[in-house]
Amino acid sequence: MPRKTIAPTDQESADSKSARTRARLLDATAKVLARKGFSGTRLSDIAEEAHVQAPAIYYYYPSREDLIEAVLFAGAKAMHEFLTERLAELPATTSPSDRLAAAVEAHLRHELELSDYARAVIRNANQMPEQFSRRALETVAQYNEIWRGLIEDLAAAGLLRSDVEPSVGRMLVLGALNWSVEWFDAKRGSLDEVIAVAKSMVLHALRP
Amino acid sequence: MPRKTIAPTDQESADSKSARTRARLLDATAKVLARKGFSGTRLSDIAEEAHVQAPAIYYYYPSREDLIEAVLFAGAKAMHEFLTERLAELPATTSPSDRLAAAVEAHLRHELELSDYARAVIRNANQMPEQFSRRALETVAQYNEIWRGLIEDLAAAGLLRSDVEPSVGRMLVLGALNWSVEWFDAKRGSLDEVIAVAKSMVLHALRP
Repeated sequence: MPRKTIAPTDQESADSKSARTRARLLDATAKVLARKGFSGTRLSDIAEEAHVQAPAIYYYYPSREDLIEAVLFAGAKAMHEFLTERLAELPATTSPSDRLAAAVEAHLRHELELSDYARAVIRNANQMPEQFSRRALETVAQYNEIWRGLIEDLAAAGLLRSDVEPSVGRMLVLGALNWSVEWFDAKRGSLDEVIAVAKSMVLHALRP
Repeated sequence: MPRKTIAPTDQESADSKSARTRARLLDATAKVLARKGFSGTRLSDIAEEAHVQAPAIYYYYPSREDLIEAVLFAGAKAMHEFLTERLAELPATTSPSDRLAAAVEAHLRHELELSDYARAVIRNANQMPEQFSRRALETVAQYNEIWRGLIEDLAAAGLLRSDVEPSVGRMLVLGALNWSVEWFDAKRGSLDEVIAVAKSMVLHALRP
């Protein structure tokens, strides 16, 4: 069930015209940002993509930078929420290995189904002027903390190889997953296959 | 021995002023491109970074796009040459596992020492208009072919786990390595440690 959009916020009813326009602006910005990067993203491109008049954007967001910030934050927040929810659903007795495998699946599924947002965050979060990326970067840091905990739990259970420095291991794993947005093509490959291979490779890469 | 520059081409003597200016323009473009992306890279920024007058750039490159193309191609070509040379140096009796480990080291060392070019290629090769990225993308494809061969050789020796689809496995490995340009900080971590952890993780991720 592919999703390509960020749901309207809680404050807004999903069926109000304003909420729909706002969601369309975020989706359009994610798409342009993923393709052209922060410096190359113009309001005129966003307006064209969203089928709104460019000046109308200012009714929703005070500036181009605020709109881009909203997309990066929404993208990072959705990623964080999705992983948190998937982990919370697991039975309390789930092993550290199975929790890590579930996180690999959650990351790939979310990233590759919501790929404009993922690509926008992945390609731009480190390139944005700091005042426009603070919330997104904080959320990405919280996301990384979840992964740090998963690998710590693996180590505590004696399941992390002694030659794997935990933070280097974590970043190599997240890199393998993040980068999939650059090459995965749903028309040519199966997401389930990528998830299965990634789970197996990640567990073998880390465990004794 | 960190390198931050692309050597002048064979056609030019390394000590000619023209060759040095050209190399400085390439280095400056790589730096701006890595930070601002294709759409956001302006000739004025490049000129400032390279300490030349903007109009003088046209003496060396007919357009902004030609200069960016030259950087992406130089970056991809240097990556390809570096790996090819490291593999050629190995004794003929080197095992498929050791050849793969040598490739992991070559990729990381080159990428993290020449990080502006690597970041420019990694972040922009897929976003450039096709007429300006053809040579770079062809070179990246040739680079990927080397990796395909390394993993094929591993499989032929019975050293690729049956649950690892080779092309998915290759892209996850290259993703883990490519992404390191986003997080590795030579001031805070040791490149040798990252290389050692990556070698161990890649071999464990793929082998029975």
